[in-house]
Amino acid sequence: MELPAASERVRSLHARMTIDEKLAQLVGYWVDQGDEVVAPMAGEMVTSTRYEDATSHGIGHLTRVYGTRPVDPVERAAWLWAEQRRLREDTRLGIPAIVHEECLTGLAAWKAATLPTPLAWGAAFDPELTERIGAAIGRTMGTLGIHQGLAPVLDVVTDPRWGRVDECIAEDPYVVGTIGTAYVRGLQSAGVHATLKHFAGYSASQAGRNHAPVHMGGRRLRDVILPPFEMAVRDGGVRSVMNSYAEIDGVPVASNPELLTGVLREEWGFDGTVVADYFSVAFLHALHGVAADLGEAAVLALRAGIDIELPTGDAFVAPLRDRLEEHPEEVALVDRAVLRVLAQKEELGLLDADFRTPPTAVELDGPELRALARRAAEESLVLLSNDGVLPLAGPRRIAVIGPNAGAAESLMGCYSFANHVLAHHPGTPLGFEIPTIAESLRSRFANAEFVAERGCDVEDPDPRGIADAARAAASAEVAVVVVGDRAGLFGRGTVGEGNDVDDLELPGAQRRLVEEVVATGTPTVVVVVSGRPYAIGWMLEGPSAAGAVVQAFFPGEEGGPAVARLLAGDAEPSGRLPVSLPRSAGAQPYTYLHPVLGGPTEITSADNTPALPFGHGLTYTTFAREELSATDAATDGSVTARVRLSNAGARAGTDVVQLYARDVFASVTRPVAQLLAYQRVALGPGETATVEFTVPASRLAFTGRDGRRIVEPGAIELWVGPSCAERETETRIELTGPVHAVTAEDARVATATVSIEAPAAV
Amino acid sequence: MELPAASERVRSLHARMTIDEKLAQLVGYWVDQGDEVVAPMAGEMVTSTRYEDATSHGIGHLTRVYGTRPVDPVERAAWLWAEQRRLREDTRLGIPAIVHEECLTGLAAWKAATLPTPLAWGAAFDPELTERIGAAIGRTMGTLGIHQGLAPVLDVVTDPRWGRVDECIAEDPYVVGTIGTAYVRGLQSAGVHATLKHFAGYSASQAGRNHAPVHMGGRRLRDVILPPFEMAVRDGGVRSVMNSYAEIDGVPVASNPELLTGVLREEWGFDGTVVADYFSVAFLHALHGVAADLGEAAVLALRAGIDIELPTGDAFVAPLRDRLEEHPEEVALVDRAVLRVLAQKEELGLLDADFRTPPTAVELDGPELRALARRAAEESLVLLSNDGVLPLAGPRRIAVIGPNAGAAESLMGCYSFANHVLAHHPGTPLGFEIPTIAESLRSRFANAEFVAERGCDVEDPDPRGIADAARAAASAEVAVVVVGDRAGLFGRGTVGEGNDVDDLELPGAQRRLVEEVVATGTPTVVVVVSGRPYAIGWMLEGPSAAGAVVQAFFPGEEGGPAVARLLAGDAEPSGRLPVSLPRSAGAQPYTYLHPVLGGPTEITSADNTPALPFGHGLTYTTFAREELSATDAATDGSVTARVRLSNAGARAGTDVVQLYARDVFASVTRPVAQLLAYQRVALGPGETATVEFTVPASRLAFTGRDGRRIVEPGAIELWVGPSCAERETETRIELTGPVHAVTAEDARVATATVSIEAPAAV
Repeated sequence: MELPAASERVRSLHARMTIDEKLAQLVGYWVDQGDEVVAPMAGEMVTSTRYEDATSHGIGHLTRVYGTRPVDPVERAAWLWAEQRRLREDTRLGIPAIVHEECLTGLAAWKAATLPTPLAWGAAFDPELTERIGAAIGRTMGTLGIHQGLAPVLDVVTDPRWGRVDECIAEDPYVVGTIGTAYVRGLQSAGVHATLKHFAGYSASQAGRNHAPVHMGGRRLRDVILPPFEMAVRDGGVRSVMNSYAEIDGVPVASNPELLTGVLREEWGFDGTVVADYFSVAFLHALHGVAADLGEAAVLALRAGIDIELPTGDAFVAPLRDRLEEHPEEVALVDRAVLRVLAQKEELGLLDADFRTPPTAVELDGPELRALARRAAEESLVLLSNDGVLPLAGPRRIAVIGPNAGAAESLMGCYSFANHVLAHHPGTPLGFEIPTIAESLRSRFANAEFVAERGCDVEDPDPRGIADAARAAASAEVAVVVVGDRAGLFGRGTVGEGNDVDDLELPGAQRRLVEEVVATGTPTVVVVVSGRPYAIGWMLEGPSAAGAVVQAFFPGEEGGPAVARLLAGDAEPSGRLPVSLPRSAGAQPYTYLHPVLGGPTEITSADNTPALPFGHGLTYTTFAREELSATDAATDGSVTARVRLSNAGARAGTDVVQLYARDVFASVTRPVAQLLAYQRVALGPGETATVEFTVPASRLAFTGRDGRRIVEPGAIELWVGPSCAERETETRIELTGPVHAVTAEDARVATATVSIEAPAAV
Repeated sequence: MELPAASERVRSLHARMTIDEKLAQLVGYWVDQGDEVVAPMAGEMVTSTRYEDATSHGIGHLTRVYGTRPVDPVERAAWLWAEQRRLREDTRLGIPAIVHEECLTGLAAWKAATLPTPLAWGAAFDPELTERIGAAIGRTMGTLGIHQGLAPVLDVVTDPRWGRVDECIAEDPYVVGTIGTAYVRGLQSAGVHATLKHFAGYSASQAGRNHAPVHMGGRRLRDVILPPFEMAVRDGGVRSVMNSYAEIDGVPVASNPELLTGVLREEWGFDGTVVADYFSVAFLHALHGVAADLGEAAVLALRAGIDIELPTGDAFVAPLRDRLEEHPEEVALVDRAVLRVLAQKEELGLLDADFRTPPTAVELDGPELRALARRAAEESLVLLSNDGVLPLAGPRRIAVIGPNAGAAESLMGCYSFANHVLAHHPGTPLGFEIPTIAESLRSRFANAEFVAERGCDVEDPDPRGIADAARAAASAEVAVVVVGDRAGLFGRGTVGEGNDVDDLELPGAQRRLVEEVVATGTPTVVVVVSGRPYAIGWMLEGPSAAGAVVQAFFPGEEGGPAVARLLAGDAEPSGRLPVSLPRSAGAQPYTYLHPVLGGPTEITSADNTPALPFGHGLTYTTFAREELSATDAATDGSVTARVRLSNAGARAGTDVVQLYARDVFASVTRPVAQLLAYQRVALGPGETATVEFTVPASRLAFTGRDGRRIVEPGAIELWVGPSCAERETETRIELTGPVHAVTAEDARVATATVSIEAPAAV
């Protein structure tokens, strides 16, 4: 085995190391680990090693120093700086630890800003904003001495039953790739290493069940699941990658060298570190049963390409040490990983840091973060339906109803500190401002009279409060019903890690609550605050149709004001569905990226048409998309596509221009629709824009019969419309020339230029 | 390309053929094709070629001559004999046609016996009986001049939402393989060629939707989907195979040479013909979009290994002929297929037949078939629950309720002539006796008073008849409620080809009917007559639990009497669930053959435990399974396992002894339970049997990391119990020696010997 290239300094450091010192660099230590279950089977996996013993030879990572319990950030920083000094001064080699934290919706630590969940980033279709969010989060982390963030999640949504959908960005790999890469760029611009999760295939588990087997072939893996990771590696320069817990076709990814080494390093040139998802090395033995003991599990993981075991050294320390005595040839696997970890520490500047001056004051929720949180929340709200009740015309009496109206925690995702950790510490305050939707409505409509009824719980099916809620609605001019999810982990909450479902109705009695409020005849606005799309077709049309429905994927600390501003018309709705709104749980899995026979046909009686399609989202104005034209292109060239967008309404608004394609005949089956490119465009009333996309032909690549990713010549249908399902303007081009095998040099991203024309003077 | 070996006679015949004569041999002609939709998109695909033109150069197959409309068998036979003589005498080469028909539940022709559906064969766990059924069906077909039957279906059930589940045998590949091979042996013992359907992967389509994409890797394909086909090819010597409509990972099987040629012929040595599923060659162009026109579709199919296009020559005649003018090198593909077809005709004796004497009388539903139909129906009924109400103790007043109580058609599967074809000919009588369950109960309980209420329809959700049904139940000593499915095709009926669902509740208002009858307090027996397992956990326990529930997978023409005999205690229940009884549609797909993480764990909140496990089935007596012992074995050897079975009750009964295994640690993930062997054993009260299984270690083979099917050394847990979910007696063995790569010479089937001891004299 060839060892990775490393600097002279790293090589000489490595040459001096004992086996104990090497193993110590390959693991984390979870200082605060307690009984709270914030990782799968964490209860069973509590380490028995004392901190002093675990760090006596140094340590690779310190695990969630800020993110495991509510600790005062400044006090904890002082402790951390002292510990790093101790590692520097009191261990033989003097190597400080990498400090990693969760940071998906902002740093997951007490008092830190909580931003919208990734499904909301997807709904905003705004990579530039996501990059700014990543950068702001990274700067906060940097001040606290944190080096690595366990985000973003680049799993492509394939099944809304899965509880972790709220951590994902979209059901389209290109949206996931562009927005996820933007987050990586942002975080790393602040000097914090991003970590791609979960490489690869985790989201495609059977029946959407957490950790369940993934069944897929190499073509779907390469064409749907892997592209976002490739973009973040090649275009984003990400520095770390975390394995998927899942098995694919019988092989747990944590033991899969083809993926973790072959694809990631040999094909894509990744030279950072691969960290184990928490306990996933031990799970090779304990759950997957592909290793007879933890020592074998350690070797399987190292051989596959996992460098660092997290959160603690369950397998990589004592069990691996024992095994190496019998299998000394396997020490080379350890050396490979150690060199990578040392290179990462060198790159992070850790080998030179002196940790003299811990921060004495930190700003974890400053104005920049709050402004970004507000903008992201506003951009991410999706107006699903509207009969004209929105924007609200200054109602005098408003009924605010539903379990999520007054619940701040309902605005935050599963990986927020609030729902991930603080839920185990009742009574501890959040430590930052997060106005509820009810509070925000009261502020915004300060002159209106309010009546409030919870109606029912998020989870508890007890319907006894619904009658009061309906009475409150009947007494008001408009009813705002706020329903949805409560994010949590492993049986706490309705969505989040471990909270998978076999039913996509709104949890508890919430459907009945909405139905009975709507039945009063009072104009009703439903706000669904959730972490997954639910089967809510019944509130979009039919006898229980609400006047308007707004989908808010956990919108974060500024979600309340954002919703209030949207309802009032202070903000324009501009989010689009980053996932199909499902028809039913029994129609899953479903993806808009299906070939003809993956959609409704006369060959099956089971209609799986989504309640609303990917890309759908209304505005308060009217956009028209016209005159799509596009050039033919060589299979190794790029397509130029031009479309006119007009704001034909009387209000300003923002459209997400969506360019779709269909490859009509190919050597393998191809989807009936594929998003090629997208662009947010804000237009004033009467304004028109020309949007010109430059789309590399490689966006139409797929894995051919021989396993290569290729672009084939032939006809391509192109269209632009308000969602994947409607061809408002369309054209057809030819890709010409020979079959082109895609290389690293092919561009992966489409670009857009927008030229806005002011309305003609009247 | 090497041409297949052929006799001198076939080679010289082939050498004389024009291209038109060759193409004619590669297609069928559907004489009676009309507007009735008995195949997917048959409406769109109606051929425009006249029969005289299509057969002027000869013809490969005649398609469903007896099975497309209700034709008098003797009259049709006279026509057929004359046509064969015409082909023999009036075409240049004088080659008669192969006549093929559907025969899954008996010959699908007017007046022919209709036997239980394959799920019922699975429930009977009785290969010997299935072989006798196949032989009896084959003899009937032989008398009518039919050469090939399009059965059995060897698709392993993976998702009960799929409408074609009723055509499948089981969710366990070994049960499918043993019973399917028995059917092949039986049919072919009568000189009729069997056709394996659908090679391969059709049943694993996304969300159980007909023709939808299949996502799986090679390991699942080889370890779960392919084994039954391999058994039927290698052990059953099957003579024909039909392709699957599906695509697997983007490649439609009809265009997949790795499967249709590589696996089937090169690995397994199959040398028969591969026939296209109806219209599937054209679908490569029209639905899959992998061919730009029908000529390209034809070449893709031929190159993959499809020899004969069915039902008609949509692609293999005119479009292929045009294409060959530009691509003369592709004629070799035609030659390969023609040689195979001619060899099949030679093997069938067609090249020597003179067709002088058509049958003047035929017996399509004689005593042998009726006796087999009765025995199969009785053996297949599964007693799911019983609080003691069964067997019925001579009730004086019986309420017979439910839409399937008086419906003869509800007893027959989707591929019965009645439901497949005759449904399009209202008013035409069935032409054979099929007593309904209601009629059979009245005959059996001749002294009881009966009250009958339908209650509701199978499909129509109108609940207005339920109150009358509940009143009838309240007035009786016992209520028998017969609910379930109506088999049909493409939107006609609730199960069958094209009738997929996204909900596994009983169709229509039937759940409410059962609930309201149970609520009367009258002891209630529910008989579910269906083609798929439904999510009926609520009638097994809880407030709506019935006194007893009997699952009847479409039990055929003797199903009514079989149910009556079972309810009366004249027959002992001996069927076992060949599929898991599902928890819900949203918990699908599910298989009992799951690794740890495919089942319920603390890592997911979505419990997918089936309502009842694979292998479950009660009896009227009590069986005890004890003292399992087993030998260690070499990885290329065989395990001897011995278990004692006692009938500890006061009645005779039949158990299906089920030996399960778990490979504790392996190089890839392995299921928590796998049926290794099974044996039906009938015991009188107090009798004890020793059942000794000889299990080839190859039954524990799986596809290893390098793609070979191997048996690994290591610990194996073994158990016997009343279902896959209960270890009533268990032991543990070691497989020893080196890793063994499975070869064709490894046995694929376990054998059993049963030694019965009479009860000790008292």
